[in-house]
Amino acid sequence: MDVVVTGMRSTGPLHIGHLVGVIENLKKLQENYKSYFFIADLHVLTTNYENVSDFKKNRIEVMLDWLASGIDPNKATLFIQSKVPAHTYLHLLLSMIVPVSWLERNPTVKEMIRDLELSENASYGLLGYPVLMASDIILYKAKFVPVGKDQLPHLEMTREMVRRFNFLYGDLFVEPQALLTNFPNVPGVDGKKMSKSLDNDIKISDTEEETTKKIMEAITDPQKIRLHDEGHPEICTVFTYHKIFNKDESETIEKDCKSGALGCVACKKNLAKKLNERLKDIREKREALKKDLDTVIDIFETGSKNASEVANATLEEALQKMNIK
Amino acid sequence: MDVVVTGMRSTGPLHIGHLVGVIENLKKLQENYKSYFFIADLHVLTTNYENVSDFKKNRIEVMLDWLASGIDPNKATLFIQSKVPAHTYLHLLLSMIVPVSWLERNPTVKEMIRDLELSENASYGLLGYPVLMASDIILYKAKFVPVGKDQLPHLEMTREMVRRFNFLYGDLFVEPQALLTNFPNVPGVDGKKMSKSLDNDIKISDTEEETTKKIMEAITDPQKIRLHDEGHPEICTVFTYHKIFNKDESETIEKDCKSGALGCVACKKNLAKKLNERLKDIREKREALKKDLDTVIDIFETGSKNASEVANATLEEALQKMNIK
Repeated sequence: MDVVVTGMRSTGPLHIGHLVGVIENLKKLQENYKSYFFIADLHVLTTNYENVSDFKKNRIEVMLDWLASGIDPNKATLFIQSKVPAHTYLHLLLSMIVPVSWLERNPTVKEMIRDLELSENASYGLLGYPVLMASDIILYKAKFVPVGKDQLPHLEMTREMVRRFNFLYGDLFVEPQALLTNFPNVPGVDGKKMSKSLDNDIKISDTEEETTKKIMEAITDPQKIRLHDEGHPEICTVFTYHKIFNKDESETIEKDCKSGALGCVACKKNLAKKLNERLKDIREKREALKKDLDTVIDIFETGSKNASEVANATLEEALQKMNIK
Repeated sequence: MDVVVTGMRSTGPLHIGHLVGVIENLKKLQENYKSYFFIADLHVLTTNYENVSDFKKNRIEVMLDWLASGIDPNKATLFIQSKVPAHTYLHLLLSMIVPVSWLERNPTVKEMIRDLELSENASYGLLGYPVLMASDIILYKAKFVPVGKDQLPHLEMTREMVRRFNFLYGDLFVEPQALLTNFPNVPGVDGKKMSKSLDNDIKISDTEEETTKKIMEAITDPQKIRLHDEGHPEICTVFTYHKIFNKDESETIEKDCKSGALGCVACKKNLAKKLNERLKDIREKREALKKDLDTVIDIFETGSKNASEVANATLEEALQKMNIK
C-alpha cells in the first residue's frame, strides 16, 4: 500500500470547516493508504511561541476531535510530532543542504510575516518551517501528501530537498506527489474565513445550544429584511452551510429563498437542526472519550512509538548516506 | 565543580597550532572543571556538506589527536555531537524563539559567506549555526566556555537566547560566561594562518621526517640570504616557532640571528629537533591508539552516552517549561 502522510496544527478545538474539509478526507485516506496522520504541535511554535499555556490542552482537543470523528487508530498511525524526535534531527540535517535563499523566496512565509505583523521578529524557525515540513513527510517515505492547490509550492520545496539530498548523498528519499484535494470552503458565521481567532467558528465540540445560537446570529443576505423579501442565497452564509450540511433540501431552499416563500428564521432553524443531527454522534462519542482521556492519550503514545520506529530507521539510513554513521 | 563546555570541528587531523592553542587549554580545564569536550561534527556540515567522504575518518583523527595529547576520558566527558540527538531537538526549540534578524546580523556568518564565496548558496544551517552552538552549550548548563576574544559576540548571542528562553518560559538555562583564553598565534610554514586547507600546517600526526622537511622549507626572513647575513627574527616564522616550542633557547637564537652568527639551516635543524622531541611521546601514543581503534571509538561512545543522559534531562526540563511535555 502506498504511504500517505499529513499533519494538522494543534491550535485548539476543530471546527466544522475542518470536519468537512480535512477530517472527511483523512477518513477516506485511512481506507486506501498506509496512513500517517500527525498532530503538528511543533509547527504551532513557528507563530505561537509566546503563549504556550494551552499547548497541551490544544493537542488533546485535536485528539478528541479526530477520534470522535472516526479517524481510526486501527487503520492509520496517529502520532504527535514532538514525540518523534527524528523529525528534529532530520530537520537539522536538511537545514545544512537547503539554501537560505529558497526559504526567503517562500511566498507563504512572506504572507505570514505580513499578516502576523511579525516583520523584524519573524523567528528562524518560521523561516525554516518548510524544512521541518519536509522532514515530516520524507521520514515516512510518503508517496502522497493531500494538499490544496495553494500548498503546491510547499510540496515542490519538499521535492526539491529530496532531489538535492539524493543527488548529494545517493538515493534514499521519495519525492512525494500531491494528492490534490478540494476542500469545501466553509465560511465563518460572519461570512469571513472560518477561524478560531476570528471567533466566527462552529466547533465540533460546541453544544447543540451553542450551535443553534451561532447559526441564528449568522450573517445572511443583508437585502432580505422582511420575511417575504426575495433573497439572494448565492451571497448567504447560511445557504452555503445548507449546500454542505443539508444537500438534499438545498435546491428547494434556494428556490423558496429567492421567491420570498422562506424566511431567514425558519431557514436557520432548519439548518441548526440538520447540523446538530449531523454532529450528534460525533459529539456523544467526544464526550465519552473525554471521560477516558488516559485511553486517548495512550492511543497517540502508541502511535508515536510506532511512527518513531519507522522514522528512526529512515534517519539511520540518512545518517549512513551522509557518512555520519 | 563548575561546568565547562567546548567543542572542536572535525575537519581533519589537528596541527601544532591546535596543540598549543586548544588542546593545552583543554588539558588545564579538565583538571579544574566538570568538563564536556565534544567533536562538533554536525557543525562541519554548515560549510562542508558537499563532500562527506572523509566525515567519519576526520572524526577519528581528532579522537586520536585528543587522546594522544593527554585529553583524559577519566577527567572529562568526551563525546561526539551527532551522537547526542538532544542537541538537534533543542536546536529546533530555540529556532522558534530566535528572531532571524539576530542571525542575519551575525558578522561571522557574513564573513564566512564572503570567504567561502557562498553568497546565494549559504545554507539555512549556516545562518543558524549560532542556534546549534547555543544548544551545545546550554544543554549542559555550562557556567564557562573557553573562547578567544573574536568569539565573544557568539557567546553573547547564546546568552541572549538563554535570557529569552528564561523570560518566556521560566528560569532553566544558565548564561554561560566567557573564559577568555589567549591562544598563541602559530603561523603556517608559509607565514600565513596555519590551516589544513592552505597546506601549510605541521600535523601532530606527521612523521619526524615530514616535520623536518616542512620546517626546512619554511619561510624565514627574505633578506637573510647568506649564512652570516644579519637576520630579522621578528618577521621570521621559524623564530615564532622557537618562541613557542624552544622557549629556553629563544633569547640566544634571537641574538645570534640578528648578529649573523646563526644561519637559517642550523636554526631550522635545531627547531625540527626540538619540535620532534616535543611531539615524540604524543606521536608514539597516537600510533599505539591507532592500532586499537575499537577502544578509541568506545571511549567516545561511552562519553556520548554519558553526555546524552545529562542533555536528555535538560531537554526534558525545557519541554516541560514550554508545556510540550
